[in-house]
Amino acid sequence: MRDKRPTISDIAKAAGVSTGAVSYALNGRPGVSETTRRRVMDIADRLGWVPSSAARSLSDGRANAIGLVVDRPARELGVEPFFVQLIAGVQDALADGPTALLLQVTDDATAELEAYRRWWAGRRVDGVLLADLRADDPRVDLVRELGLPTVILAEPVLPDLPCVWTDDESAVAEVVEYLVALGHRRIVRVAGPDTFVHTRIRSKAFTEAAARLGLSDARAVHADYSDEAAARVTRRVLTGAEPPTAMVFDNDVMAVSALAVAHELGIPVPDRLSIVAWDDSALCRLVRPALTAVRRPIAERGATAVRLLLDVIGGGEPRHVKTSDPELVPRSSTGPVSDQALSSRN
Amino acid sequence: MRDKRPTISDIAKAAGVSTGAVSYALNGRPGVSETTRRRVMDIADRLGWVPSSAARSLSDGRANAIGLVVDRPARELGVEPFFVQLIAGVQDALADGPTALLLQVTDDATAELEAYRRWWAGRRVDGVLLADLRADDPRVDLVRELGLPTVILAEPVLPDLPCVWTDDESAVAEVVEYLVALGHRRIVRVAGPDTFVHTRIRSKAFTEAAARLGLSDARAVHADYSDEAAARVTRRVLTGAEPPTAMVFDNDVMAVSALAVAHELGIPVPDRLSIVAWDDSALCRLVRPALTAVRRPIAERGATAVRLLLDVIGGGEPRHVKTSDPELVPRSSTGPVSDQALSSRN
Repeated sequence: MRDKRPTISDIAKAAGVSTGAVSYALNGRPGVSETTRRRVMDIADRLGWVPSSAARSLSDGRANAIGLVVDRPARELGVEPFFVQLIAGVQDALADGPTALLLQVTDDATAELEAYRRWWAGRRVDGVLLADLRADDPRVDLVRELGLPTVILAEPVLPDLPCVWTDDESAVAEVVEYLVALGHRRIVRVAGPDTFVHTRIRSKAFTEAAARLGLSDARAVHADYSDEAAARVTRRVLTGAEPPTAMVFDNDVMAVSALAVAHELGIPVPDRLSIVAWDDSALCRLVRPALTAVRRPIAERGATAVRLLLDVIGGGEPRHVKTSDPELVPRSSTGPVSDQALSSRN
Repeated sequence: MRDKRPTISDIAKAAGVSTGAVSYALNGRPGVSETTRRRVMDIADRLGWVPSSAARSLSDGRANAIGLVVDRPARELGVEPFFVQLIAGVQDALADGPTALLLQVTDDATAELEAYRRWWAGRRVDGVLLADLRADDPRVDLVRELGLPTVILAEPVLPDLPCVWTDDESAVAEVVEYLVALGHRRIVRVAGPDTFVHTRIRSKAFTEAAARLGLSDARAVHADYSDEAAARVTRRVLTGAEPPTAMVFDNDVMAVSALAVAHELGIPVPDRLSIVAWDDSALCRLVRPALTAVRRPIAERGATAVRLLLDVIGGGEPRHVKTSDPELVPRSSTGPVSDQALSSRN
């Protein structure tokens, strides 16, 4: 196929002038007569010439793109809905503007840092979104060092960097209060890795809610978000001494995996075990019993982050923005604690 | 934050020459002395100057990006694994090169056509991947008209455009033969919309396999890939006269939805109904009973398509490339047909 976009050479040929003259004319720079400028611009119009983003980028210094690195093994992307919903929200906010999304998927932390350096040095992006903030996150030092405009998708733990966050703390408290209202006291939370800032914030909120409500048997265990890890942990917890009557999971995949383990062990859900998933999804909605879940405004968060980033790129001050609050969506996997569940021992 | 990347102005200031002279020196063009060129290049090195992609793009004409429009409502993205696995494969193939992925999510056909026009006119992409080919697809005419390098993710129905495809026909035949080997003869296939080329190819293969194996009761019904539509269709089929003993679904979401309907109607799976999903996923693996599914090399297809597109962009001839073959992964949702299922009437 031949590239049919008119080039500066096509215009020069049609106008009978040099490509340099065309460039001067189209960029409004001195060096050509007004008559030539008019003629060149008429011909450019007639040929349907559009300035390339590269040329515009050179003149206004903008890449007209923002970057997002998705920190997951590519094959696991899409298993949990977080990144996909985030990307959907990002797209919503970019839909009508000139800015595009540059996406990279990698689970290699060094490759992620390298992507930011390369994108910024090569002026491929005007800014980036950082997700899954970790304690002592090396990416934070890097974007500060580079002066790369950044919006963090995390609680506002970094005063100098703009953050878009969701109030997970009250959602954790709401889940615990809901389970206590159903009569549960032995509650186990299966949390994600403790290296993530959001895991720590939820863990603190869980411990505080349990203390406030006098739940001496509430506790948290950690898993890596995978169905395999969740199955191992759930099997151990449910076959151990004093098994919980309710379990709360930090993602949907782990909760669905736990449902399968309960099935395997002959533990009816919700009669003997209530299950709550964090981050509602099609997975939660489609399994039987359908899972009670916390629905967070992930797409809204992506869209808000994009708008904040474009504002920061345009010279706006860094701000912290809170999204709307998560909602608890009760379905069939939670119910009143039964006498049988309360007295169960292995 | 201040942009800390050295600019041509920084180099000019440090070298005590004009920015024009720096530009000539760095681009190896005449107009500066060899001494000045050396000095400028030393200073550029010392300051860590990297030519911007915009500047390079102007010189070699490349955008160093490929485009993919994902034709789904943003909120549904990630419900089924196809696009996410495709993106993962695309990323794998791009990982080590200078080319980035420009992504847009839209379910508006006009917006999709507009994206290709804008990307190409603005030289934001060097080529695009087209997925979900339809009969009389307007995108095909557009890319031909624009001369936009394109790889189609579909069976090679367009001789002039490069295609990357998977042999769905033999996979359909394999599924039907497997079900017949288990004793099933009343098989219903719940297909995606008939507007897609891949739906038509699978439908033809299903009809041919049924005829070859003498299955006079085999038939296909259409749904739109959503769990709601699949639930409606499955309920109607299972409560109608001569309900099938086996059902085959064109995506994982519809198959999981059918599993929930069978549960609701008190029809045990696989004892009275066998279910096969198309496009294996975490969803298929995590539900109970786990779903027998056709696993297609979607990520491989994305990676192959990228390599072919880069080849075409570089001037290579359009070719058709077939991926490795799909595999049938038997799990717990399929089993021998029972006498009870055979005799069931409503």
